Amino acid sequence: MKNSIPTLEKLDRVFNPRSVAVVGDKQALGYMWLKSLTSFKGRVYSVQIDPNELPGIEKLGVPNYLNLNDIPDAVDYVIAAVPRGVVPAIVKDCIRKQVGGVCFFTSGFAETGTEEGIRLQRVITELANEAGLLVIGPNCVGVYNPRIGLRHNPIQTHGEGGPVGFIAQSGTHATMFTVVGARHGIRFSKSVSYGNAAVLDSTDYLDYLKSDDDTQIIGIYVEAVKDGRKFLSILRALTGKKHVIIWRGGESGEGARATASHTGALAQSSVVWNALIKQCGVIKVDNLEELIDVVKALLYVKPATGTRVGLVAMSGGQSVAIADTFARAGLQVPELSPVSYDRLASFFNIVGGSYRNPFDVSSSFLMSDNAIGNMANMLDVLDKDPKIDSIVLELFTIISPFSKNKNNPDPLLNTIAEFKERSKKPFITIVTAGYNETLAAEIRDRLLEKDIPSFPGFERGARTLKKLADYYKLRQGQSLN
Amino acid sequence: MKNSIPTLEKLDRVFNPRSVAVVGDKQALGYMWLKSLTSFKGRVYSVQIDPNELPGIEKLGVPNYLNLNDIPDAVDYVIAAVPRGVVPAIVKDCIRKQVGGVCFFTSGFAETGTEEGIRLQRVITELANEAGLLVIGPNCVGVYNPRIGLRHNPIQTHGEGGPVGFIAQSGTHATMFTVVGARHGIRFSKSVSYGNAAVLDSTDYLDYLKSDDDTQIIGIYVEAVKDGRKFLSILRALTGKKHVIIWRGGESGEGARATASHTGALAQSSVVWNALIKQCGVIKVDNLEELIDVVKALLYVKPATGTRVGLVAMSGGQSVAIADTFARAGLQVPELSPVSYDRLASFFNIVGGSYRNPFDVSSSFLMSDNAIGNMANMLDVLDKDPKIDSIVLELFTIISPFSKNKNNPDPLLNTIAEFKERSKKPFITIVTAGYNETLAAEIRDRLLEKDIPSFPGFERGARTLKKLADYYKLRQGQSLN
Repeated sequence: MKNSIPTLEKLDRVFNPRSVAVVGDKQALGYMWLKSLTSFKGRVYSVQIDPNELPGIEKLGVPNYLNLNDIPDAVDYVIAAVPRGVVPAIVKDCIRKQVGGVCFFTSGFAETGTEEGIRLQRVITELANEAGLLVIGPNCVGVYNPRIGLRHNPIQTHGEGGPVGFIAQSGTHATMFTVVGARHGIRFSKSVSYGNAAVLDSTDYLDYLKSDDDTQIIGIYVEAVKDGRKFLSILRALTGKKHVIIWRGGESGEGARATASHTGALAQSSVVWNALIKQCGVIKVDNLEELIDVVKALLYVKPATGTRVGLVAMSGGQSVAIADTFARAGLQVPELSPVSYDRLASFFNIVGGSYRNPFDVSSSFLMSDNAIGNMANMLDVLDKDPKIDSIVLELFTIISPFSKNKNNPDPLLNTIAEFKERSKKPFITIVTAGYNETLAAEIRDRLLEKDIPSFPGFERGARTLKKLADYYKLRQGQSLN
Repeated sequence: MKNSIPTLEKLDRVFNPRSVAVVGDKQALGYMWLKSLTSFKGRVYSVQIDPNELPGIEKLGVPNYLNLNDIPDAVDYVIAAVPRGVVPAIVKDCIRKQVGGVCFFTSGFAETGTEEGIRLQRVITELANEAGLLVIGPNCVGVYNPRIGLRHNPIQTHGEGGPVGFIAQSGTHATMFTVVGARHGIRFSKSVSYGNAAVLDSTDYLDYLKSDDDTQIIGIYVEAVKDGRKFLSILRALTGKKHVIIWRGGESGEGARATASHTGALAQSSVVWNALIKQCGVIKVDNLEELIDVVKALLYVKPATGTRVGLVAMSGGQSVAIADTFARAGLQVPELSPVSYDRLASFFNIVGGSYRNPFDVSSSFLMSDNAIGNMANMLDVLDKDPKIDSIVLELFTIISPFSKNKNNPDPLLNTIAEFKERSKKPFITIVTAGYNETLAAEIRDRLLEKDIPSFPGFERGARTLKKLADYYKLRQGQSLN
């Protein structure tokens, strides 16, 4: 009998389960699935028939059953990591149990290009579609909902949630973006990795996140979309309402060959994709770093359409490098207004350094008695100058052997945080690894605590600001709400 | 009386001093200069007249004199960090003392654009030229020779030397490249930061490194060259004899404005520069990262002109991403020869993963019983395939929570090292930060111990391989020795 509940409702049950069953977790996987669920706020069950695996499962304190249908409770979400030949049987068990949905970690289907793999995937699709069973994957890691501790990897954060949703055809990218992104201050509403898309496709997940109030920013890693028309219509409906960022895997011919082996996805025209992206005001990114950078900027940088930047570097050599890099990225580094130069001269001429834009805030500036006050004044001049749209501050020297502030960066960090709070212009910092990678990482963490976004190099900062300015300009042109 | 010793001979004395005097080091600088020289194998003297600074200098065990000419020893190299008004007097002292050369850390000259700064710089130039005094700078950090422990920053390495020389108009870049470069396995013969180039210019240092047997690779960070004709003729003479890499600061209009404030350098046409670079078979880089990557590749990667890469990634998602990134960089990711696929099928079909190129070496591959042997076989197939010019191996999963080899990467690292040794093709690894930046850094260090170059991301690896292939192809076209 076909389950006639609408897909969105089923997905809501899967994204917000009260009970989860793991089928086939084992020692060889390091009990990855059950360990991921130690943070889960609902009930967890194991299904495993191999007696050798039972002591390990028992040690984790998870009740085990020999069949899904033995579980004396409703099951909202099933994760199955079983040999591929067993998958059809599990699909049938899930149908009988009337679970909310099932994610198959198992691979070896259409992506192998083999007859048997393709056949098995077709079996899953047919069984699921006939019964109205919601299947995620196969060949994926499924759902992440940090607010309820539902994870697919033990190193994912949980507890705190945020406004970012992620739909990923790749399990690696789903894990990487949620784990590495968290270190960059990105907090998630939900994410899903969906692999071969045998039943549900990106379109279904996109439709769900569109209606999910917790999600305001939607990231997508996609290799191919089955129903392009529907995908486009959802993107259109999202335009101006939620930010959408798309990373398209297999954009190159070489990459497209890889997507075939990865998720069985077939190549799709870049011309069509790029038109779609432009039409719907979507931000296009090319890799994980760009995805992280753009989402971080959407979260922490004030929106603006201008491309004229005020650049502050911490040495003469760096001032040349930062200007070259931002100019190459398509941004302008204009001279300031005369009144700004008058104000700047009053203190820069005393402490040294250069302030034409780019600025060279030399060690003598930072070691001067009023370094903090001068920093605040300098930033305020840039804030007030009508020729400047956004402000970029390198924080290299505060972690270099030169600086007074090395051991106590708090006064400087507070000054910067206060500036960011009162300025209406986009503001980012750049903290390169410099001489001390560990210290640089610490400084980045400290900045993040104060909601100040940092980028680990000039190029990443420049690309991100350019992407954001272009995006906000496009949105403005689309005259949205 | 004019000192008529040839410049190269004077430079040789300065790059290989037996005695160094520091004029004006002080507490406010953290006695940076004297501390840098604790590693120096020759004799060190201080010249300081401020009685408040003397206890600090005494504590460092360095004999202090009130005037350079009081030092009862010949002085080969002088570093002066004095107020700019005092500089002409120090120049005169150096002339009288007949030192080998002097480097002025002091800034505040032509780069300020002020009348007084320009005048003072002219005084230095005139005094020095008249007497034949070798002046480095002003507004720079001078000479580094790790073999004799001559440093300009206490965090520079010393003891071991190498084949890389560096000429930098910026002190920051000189310090950054030598310090960060060392962590990437780059060892230096000599480096010099020369700032405003009031007396000696890049051309003189280039001429010196050309004749220096210790130097086989020459990096240059330059903002402007005074004698373009001579610069070109030296580059021509170097073509095919030593590798030359140029990073030109101020290439953009925005950057050019910064160079004026930085070292007083005037903008020069990019058209001329690019023609020059092409003519002389120079490798052009745009920033510190590219400089490090290219020099590392020259040192650790076998030369080849082909652009067809075999790519091995550690998951399906990464295999798509690596293929897209290398294709975007202008490299080809071809299908292999049929015989290669036959060989690969024999073990890949057992352990899973994909091997069309790009390869997806999944966790099941790495967790299989013969993971190490399979890795060696896979690399050998790529080595033997005539359709593949160079090989790229991602080492992400060995540091991920999946892998068996996480806790003992030695067998895998040894296998890779042995392969690199026997293969004639360019070979690089890519170790992204992944889930654990500290562990990734450790793995990179371990690879380096075995002379295996690693790059911290797909993009840096791709750009570098492309640059190297283009370079070796150009050299081949120039049919040099």
